[in-house]
Amino acid sequence: MQSFEINKSDLLKLREALEGTDAGLEAVLQEYHSSEIAILFEKLDVEDRERIINILPADIASEVISEMDEEHNPGELLVGLDPEKRSEIVEELDYDDATDIISQLDEEDQQAILADIDQDDASSIRALLSYEEDTAGGLMNTDLIRVNIKLDKKHALDEVIRQSEEMEEFYTIYAVDDSDVLQGIVSVKNIIKARASAMVSDLMITDFVYVKVDLDQEEVASLISQYNLTSIPVVDDNMRLLGRVTVDDIIDVMEQENTEDILKISGVSEDEELSGNWQDAVKSRLPWLIINLATAFLAASVIRSYEGVEKDVPAIVAYLTIIGGMGGNSATQALAVTVRRISLSDLTDKQAYNTVLKEFLVGMTNGAVNGLIVLLFAFFYDANPMLGLVLFLAMTGNLIVAGLTGSGIPLILKRVGIDPAVASSIIITTFTDCIGFLLPLWLASKLLL
Amino acid sequence: MQSFEINKSDLLKLREALEGTDAGLEAVLQEYHSSEIAILFEKLDVEDRERIINILPADIASEVISEMDEEHNPGELLVGLDPEKRSEIVEELDYDDATDIISQLDEEDQQAILADIDQDDASSIRALLSYEEDTAGGLMNTDLIRVNIKLDKKHALDEVIRQSEEMEEFYTIYAVDDSDVLQGIVSVKNIIKARASAMVSDLMITDFVYVKVDLDQEEVASLISQYNLTSIPVVDDNMRLLGRVTVDDIIDVMEQENTEDILKISGVSEDEELSGNWQDAVKSRLPWLIINLATAFLAASVIRSYEGVEKDVPAIVAYLTIIGGMGGNSATQALAVTVRRISLSDLTDKQAYNTVLKEFLVGMTNGAVNGLIVLLFAFFYDANPMLGLVLFLAMTGNLIVAGLTGSGIPLILKRVGIDPAVASSIIITTFTDCIGFLLPLWLASKLLL
Repeated sequence: MQSFEINKSDLLKLREALEGTDAGLEAVLQEYHSSEIAILFEKLDVEDRERIINILPADIASEVISEMDEEHNPGELLVGLDPEKRSEIVEELDYDDATDIISQLDEEDQQAILADIDQDDASSIRALLSYEEDTAGGLMNTDLIRVNIKLDKKHALDEVIRQSEEMEEFYTIYAVDDSDVLQGIVSVKNIIKARASAMVSDLMITDFVYVKVDLDQEEVASLISQYNLTSIPVVDDNMRLLGRVTVDDIIDVMEQENTEDILKISGVSEDEELSGNWQDAVKSRLPWLIINLATAFLAASVIRSYEGVEKDVPAIVAYLTIIGGMGGNSATQALAVTVRRISLSDLTDKQAYNTVLKEFLVGMTNGAVNGLIVLLFAFFYDANPMLGLVLFLAMTGNLIVAGLTGSGIPLILKRVGIDPAVASSIIITTFTDCIGFLLPLWLASKLLL
Repeated sequence: MQSFEINKSDLLKLREALEGTDAGLEAVLQEYHSSEIAILFEKLDVEDRERIINILPADIASEVISEMDEEHNPGELLVGLDPEKRSEIVEELDYDDATDIISQLDEEDQQAILADIDQDDASSIRALLSYEEDTAGGLMNTDLIRVNIKLDKKHALDEVIRQSEEMEEFYTIYAVDDSDVLQGIVSVKNIIKARASAMVSDLMITDFVYVKVDLDQEEVASLISQYNLTSIPVVDDNMRLLGRVTVDDIIDVMEQENTEDILKISGVSEDEELSGNWQDAVKSRLPWLIINLATAFLAASVIRSYEGVEKDVPAIVAYLTIIGGMGGNSATQALAVTVRRISLSDLTDKQAYNTVLKEFLVGMTNGAVNGLIVLLFAFFYDANPMLGLVLFLAMTGNLIVAGLTGSGIPLILKRVGIDPAVASSIIITTFTDCIGFLLPLWLASKLLL
């Protein structure tokens, strides 16, 4: 079985069905999983999407809408529906999905949608809308199974079955006291196996991992990953149970955090939307480029201050760009390895020291090998052995600087509490440009003039 | 609650306890979760780790060992233990964890460990050792709950409780026929709620997602993420049930794939171990640097072929490095956004076209803004308005090239079936270096000489 990818025959079949009757379209739609329909939606225009949503039963329609990628505007689709169908669909949505979708709409549309649905659902969604998007509160679902610690086995099991009626899946049952304070967690297995007189409080585990509602989503993800959890309860300051975050939401968080890492390390603002418009992309990237322009002027001023050298050894100009560029690339390599390592686990002082030492050795070795190639070129092509020596030393030196800065700067940033990924290649290559120009020019001024 | 990080007081307490009696040490250890002990282990030497493992009950010890990071050699720790304790621990490990740890050892140690344990467990682990590490087979766990489709409610429930005795958690019950062919999946909830006469075959869902044992792990991850699954069954060519992959294993796969993406885009070989030694790092990075050196010579040859221009307009040399470097950075930005976008979802022809168009517009705008700054500098500092014009045009042109190559090359690679992330910044910057040197020199030779 392969991951579902849109292929022409599926799309053709769907397009053909869209020409025909509702009944025919319905039959074709039944062949697909809701997440597959969500993918096929990317290829359809708004009218066709609305028609399909109107034909689908509300529970399937709500799944399709919750699976749609944010960039294809599931919220707009909801707004366009006839209010009765819309309310049915919104009521079928998990609260966290409903909140995500509705939060993309403007205030007026939000209120219109919430006014039309069951008022208990509406107030749950309103509560979720009030949490910051990238915290446990913004990520959590309020739909969960909770039982009172004073219930006995039979009543607890009845309660679980009753509450699970409306849920697709659950992993853990949360045990609360009369004030809704979280006291423990219980598995279905333990309830089933218990003797009849056992109470929830006898069956629950009281040593469990939980998060406060305002905890950053990255911390929530790292707890779920560290403790291999399938879900984690979310509580307020008084330990009252508010909701739970499940592992499938964490997968989305991880993808988002990884996108941010790749963007930051490449000098792109972390909140640039991958599929956003070009004006926003300019806003997100231009500031970094202007910083880089300032540092490039700095590096160029090194060249200006040695203008005499170029006049006497014109061949050196071409080599400057080679040595500067190679330094930049080596630094990017060291930076990528170091940033990724820091983001996967915190390094101790000793590990940090060993990382910098390792990058020093790597830089020296790669510098010497590439320096030797450049030396041979200067020897045979420019017939200038002394220039070759200068270039060998400069290349080795610059790749050592590349290793030291590419590993050292992100480690220092981490220590002082700044995200190490902002030590983007744009920042690091300033060093390798300056040193890559300075070393050959300075050495040449000493050895060749 | 925060993610557990080692702090000095925990470590001090543990170190103090390690000086004292076993009983004292045991009491201290009880305060920590097994995954926390695994993290504390990173700070201890091998003797202390062995002592702690020996003191812990086998079930906790096995959790600690399975939580240890691969780089801290959980396998070596096992080998060092007294054989009886070791067998107890290995038998407690999940089969997939045991396989991962044992696969790191040499053949002789593997056989020694497997000879000492329960022979059913040993043959399960041997079977898992035979699958490729990065496929569904290498990832799966053979520990799962399976019931025959012909069982009635009561017997099915008894079976579930009996089999779940040895498991920490399960999400789904797999229904098989007499030949162990997977027929459907059932939830505990449906079994509990069923009437007494219902058979498993009445309760199961027959429309489910599964994977073949040799499917690549990246595909497995994308299925689990796409269909929001907590686990997925793994079958052989005859649909016989072999095991299941759970969502927590997928989190590790995602981290690994993301590491590979960041490394490749930065010109580091994808299988460089983040914490490997420096010799391996040289092997993984030197080939890319030598490719880059060849392309740098190409770019430098552009400079050599316009040597006359430098002599007449010496100030241009410093600007060449600025325009080349700015192009490289812009290309890196476009590349990061495009590669990440491709890795999150396949782009249609129209989306691909729009992406390149967007990067063209971004490049033109950022090029014009930065070009203007350089123009002003040439005007006021070098008092050479014509040079300013040359530089403005060259900067704009080079940043357009950066946008087109940074987005176009990964998209083309994807179309022809090559991993777009190998269009690393090292490859892309060749274009921006060559064009970044050629444009100002050629324009200067036309307009300034």
